[in-house]
Amino acid sequence: MNSIQLTHQGRLRHFLGIEGLSRNILLEILDTAAELSDQVQQAGKLNLLNGKTIANLFFEPSTRTRTTFELAAKRLSADVLNVNISTSSTTKGETLIDMLQNLEAMYCDLFVIRHHESGAPHFMARHISPHVSIINAGDGRHEHPTQAMLDMYTIRQYKPDFTQLTVAIVGDILHSRVARSQIHALTILGVPEIRVVAPKTLMPLGVESFGVKVFHQLEAGLRGVDVVMMLRLQRERMQTALLPSEHEYFQSYGLTETVLEVTHPTAIVMHPGPINRGVEIDSVVADGPRSVILQQVSNGIAIRMAVMAMTLGKYH
Amino acid sequence: MNSIQLTHQGRLRHFLGIEGLSRNILLEILDTAAELSDQVQQAGKLNLLNGKTIANLFFEPSTRTRTTFELAAKRLSADVLNVNISTSSTTKGETLIDMLQNLEAMYCDLFVIRHHESGAPHFMARHISPHVSIINAGDGRHEHPTQAMLDMYTIRQYKPDFTQLTVAIVGDILHSRVARSQIHALTILGVPEIRVVAPKTLMPLGVESFGVKVFHQLEAGLRGVDVVMMLRLQRERMQTALLPSEHEYFQSYGLTETVLEVTHPTAIVMHPGPINRGVEIDSVVADGPRSVILQQVSNGIAIRMAVMAMTLGKYH
Amino acid sequence: MNSIQLTHQGRLRHFLGIEGLSRNILLEILDTAAELSDQVQQAGKLNLLNGKTIANLFFEPSTRTRTTFELAAKRLSADVLNVNISTSSTTKGETLIDMLQNLEAMYCDLFVIRHHESGAPHFMARHISPHVSIINAGDGRHEHPTQAMLDMYTIRQYKPDFTQLTVAIVGDILHSRVARSQIHALTILGVPEIRVVAPKTLMPLGVESFGVKVFHQLEAGLRGVDVVMMLRLQRERMQTALLPSEHEYFQSYGLTETVLEVTHPTAIVMHPGPINRGVEIDSVVADGPRSVILQQVSNGIAIRMAVMAMTLGKYH
Repeated sequence: MNSIQLTHQGRLRHFLGIEGLSRNILLEILDTAAELSDQVQQAGKLNLLNGKTIANLFFEPSTRTRTTFELAAKRLSADVLNVNISTSSTTKGETLIDMLQNLEAMYCDLFVIRHHESGAPHFMARHISPHVSIINAGDGRHEHPTQAMLDMYTIRQYKPDFTQLTVAIVGDILHSRVARSQIHALTILGVPEIRVVAPKTLMPLGVESFGVKVFHQLEAGLRGVDVVMMLRLQRERMQTALLPSEHEYFQSYGLTETVLEVTHPTAIVMHPGPINRGVEIDSVVADGPRSVILQQVSNGIAIRMAVMAMTLGKYH
Repeated sequence: MNSIQLTHQGRLRHFLGIEGLSRNILLEILDTAAELSDQVQQAGKLNLLNGKTIANLFFEPSTRTRTTFELAAKRLSADVLNVNISTSSTTKGETLIDMLQNLEAMYCDLFVIRHHESGAPHFMARHISPHVSIINAGDGRHEHPTQAMLDMYTIRQYKPDFTQLTVAIVGDILHSRVARSQIHALTILGVPEIRVVAPKTLMPLGVESFGVKVFHQLEAGLRGVDVVMMLRLQRERMQTALLPSEHEYFQSYGLTETVLEVTHPTAIVMHPGPINRGVEIDSVVADGPRSVILQQVSNGIAIRMAVMAMTLGKYH
Repeated sequence: MNSIQLTHQGRLRHFLGIEGLSRNILLEILDTAAELSDQVQQAGKLNLLNGKTIANLFFEPSTRTRTTFELAAKRLSADVLNVNISTSSTTKGETLIDMLQNLEAMYCDLFVIRHHESGAPHFMARHISPHVSIINAGDGRHEHPTQAMLDMYTIRQYKPDFTQLTVAIVGDILHSRVARSQIHALTILGVPEIRVVAPKTLMPLGVESFGVKVFHQLEAGLRGVDVVMMLRLQRERMQTALLPSEHEYFQSYGLTETVLEVTHPTAIVMHPGPINRGVEIDSVVADGPRSVILQQVSNGIAIRMAVMAMTLGKYH
């Protein structure tokens, strides 16, 4: 994995997943994000990626993630191409590789890819020209590395020393690529206690092998934690036998002010959004003083600027 | 109303509606539009809004209005984000306020909003951060203030003294947010005689309270006027009991060269577009020497540049 | 035709079709493309069309061609407007001319048009203001001139002297606007032998009048040629009585390594894309050393930059 993500000199070439990356690379991403964020705040816009073309290839719809990538690219003066996949040439029977090679031939420098199949960005990275980079914007149930990095960035703003933290990830661990990337990132950054909290039907078998502590009861899982990372509940799951009703789920796993009292007094509450108010989180908590949810959104721009600049070799 | 649209210093902060604004503010918009238009004509593009991000949120489809906002923004070097609402997060159950707060967190500086519900832009303006501005691009049956201002701009190009004019607004007054904004703007700018011309089924009850003269017969309504402002007939209305057929409507209220003869010899003909040829206006009139319809389209860019620059505090 | 495409000084004003243009104009397009391509390679981006607005009007879907026009425009710093026709005002009953006039009034400088009806770009060119230009991105079965010019550009990279070449065009000649434009361009540039190869059902009656040699057998048509130009097979045709099955077509007219042996040893293989692997061309050939298919895609950017700059009077 590392061999494909890094250059021979150890620089970030693609950003496909957190798994296998070093602590130094993760810290470099966080530091680059902070520096670019400061510079953009002062200058409005930077010329760093002027003349570069970034193509957004979203095989799954996602306004929010696509938009932050687009805004991050524009802040650095790159040109952005949003390829609407459903109306594009794949409907004419073109293969994925043909499509990529064509966009490459049009001098696209970087592809941001979201795909419903796990491993699609890695597959593409193995078939792409040496001068082109790929960023994974979420693949199947596998990874969503920029989400995890913006979460780490947000945590560091409030709790600078990762090696002192207890962090709980709550919700649909089983289906969540966000959770997978978060667990990898927290582990690599040295968080000593990572907890996962979910009903049995939403907990992957053998999750303990990731070095996490498993909880099936919310209050027990949140006791004393410094960071609560909520996951979004895919309402589609409700249709299946995996979950009872939204109401029942909220009774057991919804984050309320009462439950929050068991956490550390300075604990922060995170959520990748969009939130389902009254399903996985109470509005009072989502809009309350502990919530850093909108800060996460802002930090998403910073992190995406950083990984774009780094993979394109335009920073450090 | 004014308190929300203006800063404490009386500067334009949001542009939500014409109602309640002062004559000075309207004249400042017209003058700013003229100045920016001249500057863009010479320079091709201005750097005024470089580093600013403008998000188009259109909850009703409108290629024309959205496009002129987009072009106006680009002429001033802003970045433009077109948020496709139907495919966006609102379909995932996100509330409108959540969506706005997220876009705010992504450092959007200005929202251009079209919404099918009257008052939606005001609602948003009350819930938005101090550093973000909102422009109403049409809300329900309420207001469409940039359309009214581009109409005023166009009138002033041909008839510089508003206090000498007789103006007729013709068509579906009942459902028209354009008519409401036009009546407010004409009144504030001192037009002594404003007429509304429509069949009874398309005339709002109590419209006289706006200080307008009511006509149900086209020729009587147009006699001696300096400006004819046609409204677009929503063909959907034809399905209801409100109107007979397109043919019958044209017989009674369609603007033809013959009817036009009763107006002042230098009268101009306006229409917000897109026109229904042969329904509310004859092609000979729409394409004739009195028509300033395409001039209105061009002026739409100037007005939108002006209100964007003013609400963002980048002019005067 | 020439009178509408050229200014009184003989400069390119619109680019509607190859037919009727002079050898000098075609060479000027190729040379301009080469020069702009070099300059962009060095500078990343040029300021040539800064302040110009280019509107893409695609009445037929085409991600690939639209994208290369968009990227070409951005490389020259123009603003690009993608008008989504299906959701635009034409659905409100607006005529094509109304739509054009409105976009003109919004200060669009250049329209790139793809339309399912032959002659649509010419029709528009006759109804447009003197300061606005039109580029044909494919109209019905008529012409696709930028495709033909990028093909000529590619041929020249490998075979610099057009007057020494034998070129074969293979596939659905009957329905292909690409083939029509290619035949015109090759003829004007002095290619002494142009062959068309197709089953009788896909060969237009009287095609010999274009000065081409007709072949119904693939091997005979390819014997000794320097350039093989494959056409895309529209799979829709398969439904009709014109063709047997994809499999049978490939047996008779599919380009394989074996068939390719009859060509000149340095022959190149071209295809406008997207390719139907295993229908008109074998993957081994499409991805093989003779294929210049991806080079054609890259050259499409160069050619489109050239015709944009030339029609807008910003080059030479």
